[in-house]
Amino acid sequence: MSSNPSYLRGLSRRVLLSALAVAPALIGPLRSAPASAQGTDPLPSWNDGATKQSIVTFVSRVTTQGGPDFVPVDQRIATFDNDGTLWIEQPMYIQLAFILDRVKALAPQNPGWKTKQPFKAVLDGDMKALAASGEKGLMQLMAVTHAGMTSEGFAKIVSAWLATARDHRFKRPYTELVYQPMLELLAYLRANGFKTFIVSGGGIEFMRPWTEKVYGIPPEQVVGSSIKTRFEMQDGRPVLFRLPEINFIDDKVGKPLGINAHIGRRPLAAFGNSDGDLEMLQYATLSGGPRFGLLVHHTDAEREYAYDRKSHFGKLDKALDAAAVNKWTVVSMKTDWKKIFPGDA
Amino acid sequence: MSSNPSYLRGLSRRVLLSALAVAPALIGPLRSAPASAQGTDPLPSWNDGATKQSIVTFVSRVTTQGGPDFVPVDQRIATFDNDGTLWIEQPMYIQLAFILDRVKALAPQNPGWKTKQPFKAVLDGDMKALAASGEKGLMQLMAVTHAGMTSEGFAKIVSAWLATARDHRFKRPYTELVYQPMLELLAYLRANGFKTFIVSGGGIEFMRPWTEKVYGIPPEQVVGSSIKTRFEMQDGRPVLFRLPEINFIDDKVGKPLGINAHIGRRPLAAFGNSDGDLEMLQYATLSGGPRFGLLVHHTDAEREYAYDRKSHFGKLDKALDAAAVNKWTVVSMKTDWKKIFPGDA
Repeated sequence: MSSNPSYLRGLSRRVLLSALAVAPALIGPLRSAPASAQGTDPLPSWNDGATKQSIVTFVSRVTTQGGPDFVPVDQRIATFDNDGTLWIEQPMYIQLAFILDRVKALAPQNPGWKTKQPFKAVLDGDMKALAASGEKGLMQLMAVTHAGMTSEGFAKIVSAWLATARDHRFKRPYTELVYQPMLELLAYLRANGFKTFIVSGGGIEFMRPWTEKVYGIPPEQVVGSSIKTRFEMQDGRPVLFRLPEINFIDDKVGKPLGINAHIGRRPLAAFGNSDGDLEMLQYATLSGGPRFGLLVHHTDAEREYAYDRKSHFGKLDKALDAAAVNKWTVVSMKTDWKKIFPGDA
Repeated sequence: MSSNPSYLRGLSRRVLLSALAVAPALIGPLRSAPASAQGTDPLPSWNDGATKQSIVTFVSRVTTQGGPDFVPVDQRIATFDNDGTLWIEQPMYIQLAFILDRVKALAPQNPGWKTKQPFKAVLDGDMKALAASGEKGLMQLMAVTHAGMTSEGFAKIVSAWLATARDHRFKRPYTELVYQPMLELLAYLRANGFKTFIVSGGGIEFMRPWTEKVYGIPPEQVVGSSIKTRFEMQDGRPVLFRLPEINFIDDKVGKPLGINAHIGRRPLAAFGNSDGDLEMLQYATLSGGPRFGLLVHHTDAEREYAYDRKSHFGKLDKALDAAAVNKWTVVSMKTDWKKIFPGDA
């Protein structure tokens, strides 16, 4: 599978998450599949086959009253990674595209950036120089794009950006570059009593402004990376002011910690696409009882992207090996999905 | 109003929270009031009067479709403090009683504790010496009672303790020393589309094992103080191991931070009883639109306790002054509540 350009390699996942750990947008139409009704297929964008069958079989097992694997509604927790699992993450995380655009938007008020790294690299479109600035550089970009405003102010910035930003390849808003089969899966699980959560390495406040409209997932069911905030009064109004300091990185071993902190129950099912999701899938599935783990494998260079073990963003290597051992379902986008995005024919 | 014994003063709120920041019980019957039905009083344990009326009026305002103050269901977030707001906190926080009992239970396996502070103080029932051990002492007690086991293991310890522990004055399980009028209020709000959350200085994992049964509040709607945990594999099973290190103190300015981290929306209504709830009530109510703040004032020494400005646990001083300024409802337990506990006649 193809990997990312070498100049992006300096932007490690940890570095990016540091920058991404961070934002709140009211954009994008809510596209939920119709709830499962007698006789209608709740997963119409999934091709028939072992992958689709594994999902339906699991849901049937845990929802069959009186069956040996029945699970009460209050324990039906499903956790979903976001980048690469619910929406695209190539050629770079969308939150990184936000950072780059935001630096450009703020440049006129900061004339010194023209000659100062890492800002110069962003303004020149010099990704090699940007990568060379490393974690320190990205933290500087994070500080000026993700901190220094209230949580509510940041939500407005994110919403405004998502309303106008377009993916270069697909020429569509990012919130339309979500996976139609996964939207159907979210709706199918909810129709069967599951509470659906996002558990993402992305910034919790970058996701919350739009996840309800786009995925039907409300803010209180979004777990993500975060920066610190400070409670303060501004003109007699209490606000949370965003600080340029990492609070929590919700990736790898951070995902089970984030799940425990926010949800307080072990998920019954977990969905991811990269090594960043390995521990979440382990935590959800390796503890006895009926459990379900699923990885989205990006195998469709034509309709989306094809990448796995050597990709910089969304590297899928150890988790792919673990899937075979632990009998997690692996979705091949190319063969298992009839369509990729809601707007596709 | 009476204050606590002087020997408890060394146990500051911060010190206690450090120790309390920490714990998971399946106990106590779920006692929810019947949902509001045509013609039946949803708040039968509340005496008629301005206090009760303020609650009913607020709920009516925000739920009247087409009215000027109507609030959509997804924005009806209500946050409740726990200690002193939903259950008793005198003569000491219940989580502190847990710590003391737990040290006694573990003493036979730790013979050295007989001569070593702060353990000796606990075993001798010497509260003065315990208070003298200060934050350092309490952190040591916290380490041996709240850390060194998995989250699931801790939940079992808490549940087992709550199943047998009894309050000395009322001779009842602590989970029966919850306030019947507040149980009715929780159910009334939920019947009107509110999502109810606990936002407490107490340990998040000390509360989660029992809040669903006792209050109808599921684990994912509990926000509290926490210690750090470590993801690890034990015999091939992924667990979270509890470490003797504070992660987050969900008190005072921590409450708005905890609300933002876990809920991601500004509450429409907030309920507390002490200065630890001041910032939460400010955050919820001082931001325009229809909002509701309420403080429980412990004024009933006969049926429960009477304390406020000088109390060590649950000090209510600044927040009481703020209530007058901000028009928060102040409940007098003595005059506003017909009964205190569910088991009362």
